[in-house]
Amino acid sequence: MVLIDIGNTNYHIYKDGSITHTQKIYPFNDEIYYISVNEKKEKDLLSKNPNAVNLKNYVRFNTKYKGLGIDRIMACKSIKDGVVVDAGSAITVDVMKNGVHLGGFIAPGIYAFKRAFGTISEVLTLNPLEPEETLPLSTQEALNWGSLGAVKCLIQKVAENKKIYFTGGDGEFLSNMFENGIYVEDLVFRGMINTLKEMKK
Amino acid sequence: MVLIDIGNTNYHIYKDGSITHTQKIYPFNDEIYYISVNEKKEKDLLSKNPNAVNLKNYVRFNTKYKGLGIDRIMACKSIKDGVVVDAGSAITVDVMKNGVHLGGFIAPGIYAFKRAFGTISEVLTLNPLEPEETLPLSTQEALNWGSLGAVKCLIQKVAENKKIYFTGGDGEFLSNMFENGIYVEDLVFRGMINTLKEMKK
Repeated sequence: MVLIDIGNTNYHIYKDGSITHTQKIYPFNDEIYYISVNEKKEKDLLSKNPNAVNLKNYVRFNTKYKGLGIDRIMACKSIKDGVVVDAGSAITVDVMKNGVHLGGFIAPGIYAFKRAFGTISEVLTLNPLEPEETLPLSTQEALNWGSLGAVKCLIQKVAENKKIYFTGGDGEFLSNMFENGIYVEDLVFRGMINTLKEMKK
Repeated sequence: MVLIDIGNTNYHIYKDGSITHTQKIYPFNDEIYYISVNEKKEKDLLSKNPNAVNLKNYVRFNTKYKGLGIDRIMACKSIKDGVVVDAGSAITVDVMKNGVHLGGFIAPGIYAFKRAFGTISEVLTLNPLEPEETLPLSTQEALNWGSLGAVKCLIQKVAENKKIYFTGGDGEFLSNMFENGIYVEDLVFRGMINTLKEMKK
């Protein structure tokens, strides 16, 4: 069995307990269950694997949020209480309480921040590091604060003292900025596996 | 006398107590005092007004920040205590205490956030509004939180209960999100006028 999480930039592929990331997809000999936030990449998957099953059609999830991305749903389904941060092209942040999704927000990902500063002025070069505690005294640190620091501030505000589960390409890096943060590489896939279990009930 | 604040996008021109904004510069018959963060635009000003005086060479300002933009210096020089937010292409935030600059940070401006989300996915359309109090339950509100909301969170954190002085193209809009916020259209020019006064002492 292969699980595939189609993001805006990459296909994230889970097989035999390990995860790979690729920009191009190929045919598999296994059963495929997938989710997708990118139509073009999804079409490409289906052209090469016509029997792949979209788990979006089977998932049950308790939320009042309209139009919640299926990747966020799956990551959230893997926990009952806490905050889920998926840090990829975008940084999505969602709050779960007793298995119910309370809402969440979307910030630019680190690369998007880098580009955003770059388009304002060539001197605004973001070199992402954990923001320091004291007020910035250099452009380098000022940019860290105004991007990662601002997102960190809002994550801390919604998390209060809850556990924060990080996943995605920049998840490990971001998780180190939070005392109550842990990095779970396969968070989205755990939700997909939960969904498969529910389907078979 | 004309004061000109050359930004990355516009020339901001102060004459007879009123401010205009323009992307192209022309010759003036008056004395010109200016500051600039954009070399190309500065050259253009000087080619048409060779006698214009760069106030950067005369300003005195107490800070440990390395490479603080001259526009930020001028805006900060206009106050003794409080937080200065200049919301243009970028959103710069600086903290002043007893006439001393303690540091500050740089976030993307509203337009830069818009573009940053747009490059991640065409469905991420930021339509900037004041972030609501409760956790977002829609993509629209999620994007507001993850951009303006995150920056707001960090501004509140550094401001504590100090007064927050807003200026720049989006300054008035942002100032309405803060109980302790006031919008001062000519904040940078007040600093330039203070500098002129110091020069003449």
